[in-house]
Amino acid sequence: MTASLVDRILARDPRAIARAISKIENDAPDANEILKAIFARTGRGLTVGVTGAPGAGKSSLVDKLALHYRSIGKTVGVIAVDPSSPFSGGAILGDRIRMQTLANDPGVFIRSMATRGNLGGLARATVDAVAVLEAAGYDRTLVETVGVGQDEVDIVKAADVSVVVLVPGMGDDIQAIKAGIMEIGDIFVINKADREGVERTERELIALLEMSERSDGPGGKNGWRPPIVRTVAVQSKGIVEFVEAIENFADFRRTHLASLERRANVAQNRIIELLRERLLRLALDEALAPGQLRELAAQVASRSRDPYSIVDEIAGRIRIE
Amino acid sequence: MTASLVDRILARDPRAIARAISKIENDAPDANEILKAIFARTGRGLTVGVTGAPGAGKSSLVDKLALHYRSIGKTVGVIAVDPSSPFSGGAILGDRIRMQTLANDPGVFIRSMATRGNLGGLARATVDAVAVLEAAGYDRTLVETVGVGQDEVDIVKAADVSVVVLVPGMGDDIQAIKAGIMEIGDIFVINKADREGVERTERELIALLEMSERSDGPGGKNGWRPPIVRTVAVQSKGIVEFVEAIENFADFRRTHLASLERRANVAQNRIIELLRERLLRLALDEALAPGQLRELAAQVASRSRDPYSIVDEIAGRIRIE
Repeated sequence: MTASLVDRILARDPRAIARAISKIENDAPDANEILKAIFARTGRGLTVGVTGAPGAGKSSLVDKLALHYRSIGKTVGVIAVDPSSPFSGGAILGDRIRMQTLANDPGVFIRSMATRGNLGGLARATVDAVAVLEAAGYDRTLVETVGVGQDEVDIVKAADVSVVVLVPGMGDDIQAIKAGIMEIGDIFVINKADREGVERTERELIALLEMSERSDGPGGKNGWRPPIVRTVAVQSKGIVEFVEAIENFADFRRTHLASLERRANVAQNRIIELLRERLLRLALDEALAPGQLRELAAQVASRSRDPYSIVDEIAGRIRIE
Repeated sequence: MTASLVDRILARDPRAIARAISKIENDAPDANEILKAIFARTGRGLTVGVTGAPGAGKSSLVDKLALHYRSIGKTVGVIAVDPSSPFSGGAILGDRIRMQTLANDPGVFIRSMATRGNLGGLARATVDAVAVLEAAGYDRTLVETVGVGQDEVDIVKAADVSVVVLVPGMGDDIQAIKAGIMEIGDIFVINKADREGVERTERELIALLEMSERSDGPGGKNGWRPPIVRTVAVQSKGIVEFVEAIENFADFRRTHLASLERRANVAQNRIIELLRERLLRLALDEALAPGQLRELAAQVASRSRDPYSIVDEIAGRIRIE
């Protein structure tokens, strides 16, 4: 069953891909086996992560990017991540109209991911879903995030190319975010660039980039100077330049040693993320009786016990051989 | 040492509070003991979590809220969370000018928190920091988030009163977020309400609230209908009404059984969050030799090993007594 599903994924069967991603989302028992089986086939395509403030027009930008890649004959996978919907577990695609041209194109696969439950793991599940699309042989996998929290940063950092989208004149809160995501952008896009204030935003961005102490040296990533691309996605303006910037960075990565270091960082984060989730599930399943977590929670809520000693106790029962 | 620090926290000594929060952020060995010692003294004040889109003016709103509470004689703790700065570990307060009146007032404690490192745990650290402020006896603890990701949702859900801040006319991405955070808002604020489009935003919000299937029944939280408050924080408009809404909800919580359920949910999330972090640290420290994680990461990066079997192997060595 798993074997044939794996074969169908590698043959880019959209139903098999969708099923595998659902298994990943739901932590199905065989999800792990599928991921092991396809792992060697991942990392061939190019994954582009797109993040930025809400309202920056990321989904339009990603749609236009996908259309452009299709126009030059590349197959495209799109994953839209919405961690701000922890309760619904629902898809943003349902709420949002994506371009029909994309939705009906067999060279395109679109899927949304949302957090579910307390165990989290959205970043882990998204990266695993991207692995499925890579193994399926999509030339470009585009990952679009809605929010700007830690999950999104983790997701976008895991991509081959990280894109940060800004818009002109969004006030001071944005500045705080800019400072935080300076380090992850390989490419910066100022979308809605027909709006007032675009020059100022670009100037501020350049100043921030020059100031920012990137982990690999000031002003650039091992010699890469992140370009700033202006787009008006809804009018398809600047998309060609955006694609060019993406492909340039991809070439740069391939020819620079630093990319090995970066890939090792991504891999390390991945191991940690997988481990974190696995260990928690193990402890909840095996260290606690059914209903016991709820009971302990009630004791903490009434302050008859503190959560720290509960965790001490559980951790104290764990032995590593 | 810990004992005297605990005494000083309970006596609301700001330097002791700051030190305890730093210990929490840095996972100092005695942070756990401090938290255990103060736990019974937490939960007396009221914690207000404020989230919303970047650019919504949350920090101005929180500043004005703090000022108002001071004007009626309440002591106030403020924690500003910035998970979008995972690399700097830095404080947003340095980048941002908070009101001098607040910063110089001994009845106010202000602190920022940011993510650091791969182990994450920002939500856990923030909730622990709030516990310190509660134990210190601040009447109101205000927690302000910058982003809108899962971390922020977790943080705001852990508060006694969850406030979601919107602004008029922020485009379609915002709608996706609105749908996602509908469930966590006890109170909705439309800030910058002197802007065009405020009526439309309010109408949309009402429609969304009516449509949203809250876990505790449509249209309300066990009978609580989240009020919508219009503010212009920079002009101090609507702050009195905002405070009224907060205090009303606090009264409602105290007199409704449902709040027990909610507190148990919060406690359960807390246990899980603490457990997740503890187990990961345990595995990294005890199941792996120094440098081994890096080595495994390099093997995954070169695709000579897959991360899933690495995690299988580590998990397979764990025994629960």
